[in-house]
Amino acid sequence: MDIAAEALAKHAEWKGKIAFDPKMDIATRHDLAVAYTPGVAEPCKVIAQNPEAAYDYTLKGNTVAVVSDGSAVLGLGNIGPEAAMPVMEGKAVLFKQFGGVDAFPICLDTQDVDEIVETVIRIAPAFGGINLEDIAAPRCFEIEARLNDALDIPVFHDDQHGTAIVVLSGLINALRLTGKSAADVRVVVNGAGSAGIAIAKLMLAYGFANVTMCDRFGIVSSAYEGLNDAQRAMLAVTNLDDRQGTLADAMTGADIVVGVSAPGVITGEMVASMADDAIVFAMANPTPEIFPDEAKAAGARVVGTGRSDFPNQVNNVIAFPGIFKGALEARAERITEPMKLAAAQALADLVSDEELAEDFIMPDPFDARVADAVAAAVRACAEAERAED
Amino acid sequence: MDIAAEALAKHAEWKGKIAFDPKMDIATRHDLAVAYTPGVAEPCKVIAQNPEAAYDYTLKGNTVAVVSDGSAVLGLGNIGPEAAMPVMEGKAVLFKQFGGVDAFPICLDTQDVDEIVETVIRIAPAFGGINLEDIAAPRCFEIEARLNDALDIPVFHDDQHGTAIVVLSGLINALRLTGKSAADVRVVVNGAGSAGIAIAKLMLAYGFANVTMCDRFGIVSSAYEGLNDAQRAMLAVTNLDDRQGTLADAMTGADIVVGVSAPGVITGEMVASMADDAIVFAMANPTPEIFPDEAKAAGARVVGTGRSDFPNQVNNVIAFPGIFKGALEARAERITEPMKLAAAQALADLVSDEELAEDFIMPDPFDARVADAVAAAVRACAEAERAED
Repeated sequence: MDIAAEALAKHAEWKGKIAFDPKMDIATRHDLAVAYTPGVAEPCKVIAQNPEAAYDYTLKGNTVAVVSDGSAVLGLGNIGPEAAMPVMEGKAVLFKQFGGVDAFPICLDTQDVDEIVETVIRIAPAFGGINLEDIAAPRCFEIEARLNDALDIPVFHDDQHGTAIVVLSGLINALRLTGKSAADVRVVVNGAGSAGIAIAKLMLAYGFANVTMCDRFGIVSSAYEGLNDAQRAMLAVTNLDDRQGTLADAMTGADIVVGVSAPGVITGEMVASMADDAIVFAMANPTPEIFPDEAKAAGARVVGTGRSDFPNQVNNVIAFPGIFKGALEARAERITEPMKLAAAQALADLVSDEELAEDFIMPDPFDARVADAVAAAVRACAEAERAED
Repeated sequence: MDIAAEALAKHAEWKGKIAFDPKMDIATRHDLAVAYTPGVAEPCKVIAQNPEAAYDYTLKGNTVAVVSDGSAVLGLGNIGPEAAMPVMEGKAVLFKQFGGVDAFPICLDTQDVDEIVETVIRIAPAFGGINLEDIAAPRCFEIEARLNDALDIPVFHDDQHGTAIVVLSGLINALRLTGKSAADVRVVVNGAGSAGIAIAKLMLAYGFANVTMCDRFGIVSSAYEGLNDAQRAMLAVTNLDDRQGTLADAMTGADIVVGVSAPGVITGEMVASMADDAIVFAMANPTPEIFPDEAKAAGARVVGTGRSDFPNQVNNVIAFPGIFKGALEARAERITEPMKLAAAQALADLVSDEELAEDFIMPDPFDARVADAVAAAVRACAEAERAED
């Protein structure tokens, strides 16, 4: 049976990939009195005096809402809230399995920014964090920003920041391997949607100095008409010499290309035009911008993709469970830029000098150390930020 | 350790009474490909074609939202959404333990009717039913009605209907015991809030003909000023001879009194003024309108309370898990009046002629047959209603 058929059969068997299990048995009237009435009134009264106590007495402290409007689900596009459910449930499974974090899918029957924002604000009391998922650009930017302003729990759009963290961790190790430095390399990010912009921003925050963005119409420059607000903001910090032209022009002489764009848009010729020890992340799914063998044949030294059947899979699952685990443990109110950088560094550091190789720049998703290492980095960062306040 | 101290300690230990457990292990890349990408795209595509398939491929088919605005929590009043969490989690535990139904607490950071209604509508896609809980009257009526109009999943305010179903089941058996008939008895319902009104309505639907409501100011009659809309609507079907006066006046000669009011408001004298074989349900919590021993001493034959330390506990837990289990199995769009009546009858029927006694008119909450019996009754009713459409 192929994966598609097996997945459909399994989903029909599961009828929901997560179930809710009570942490106690209710077998006697005494059990009922302790877990429910009248005993339950006691934690209620404590929390009524101090809402922060919800972290101590309820599921809030270890629970994340996985929120989607179903507008940009996988490569399937705008399929709506019901159809987004299997993905959000899958995400919840990964949260628990990899990070020990409870997560519940909230699939919204609206794609209006104001309505999404106000709805998430209203349901927030039960949650310790909000993971936004598969929400189309550019509204995902505004939704995340407004929710982070309004709420005192972290709001994190994984398609942006999870991807950016994992890409950065891979690039840190690719540079370690090639002996190049972030400040000196020329980088091209192909794809100027939410993931591409988040990747470029985090790279700049890390210390990459020379980043140029492209999209299907070529280099994002002052001559480019029709940029959205987020793209226009990137112009101020990328493509500083205002180069114009095609993706091929941008890639000539570049050290790194990161593709979050479309199948097959990078050719061997383009890779051949890059600097020595070129680093190619081709993350279009399921068909990458260029296949690893072709990129290698054209001279790339390190190649990453979004696929599990090639080395160097750029997979958010090594980031988001640990990010939220750490943020929840620290009761952080935000996932800040320093936390994202610390998470990327922690992931990179999990690959030892002995292990580091062209085909091994990121830890394996099933490496049991991953979530704890990321969580520890985020928690330490949160605690340092709190101490500064 | 008393219950209060034990409950607080246990809640601090649990830190949330439910956890989310994946139904599968994700131990290999293959597992990840089946439960998450790329396999998860298959059920997504099927549901995108037909949203009803969410029942077959996602948790929707067995999952209920327990929704509260924290405005009328237990006897604690308006304590807000965070402080309501322990109760809603407790409800979720009971849903799972007694009915096998997954439930998730949604505690809303708003007490505005319009905002509650639109928020619940927007989060509804992930759920197969909505259990409203601890929302103050009279807004609970409007919220429930508007949600039932807007959604094609059942919306059920347990404080109203769950209570009414269990009370009715007890009264059915109390009549069976005393040989009286619903059409002939005189009934007083003391308490004209959401529970009292729901009880009176369901009793009328069952066939009780003579019901009079009272509240703290006396008999609800044409002379009563300041009735809300829901109370005014009840005037058309209760107190048909427009009797006026106090609770004591109403109870004189009555066969049944149902109290959902306040501690100690029913005296032995009032009970003594009732008809022979009087039935007294005194459900104020934790201190009833009259204690069972006093009511019995005054001549009551059957006494029920809300407490687990007296016989005949009127406890919603014998109703709501089975109600939703049956409704979800039938994919019912509403919990209709016939379903509520069928549930009450099913509960009453669980007490055999041999078991039926003054001190045993309702099945024990821990009787393993309860939820299935209620679910079967609701499901049969839903299927009959569907066949009629």
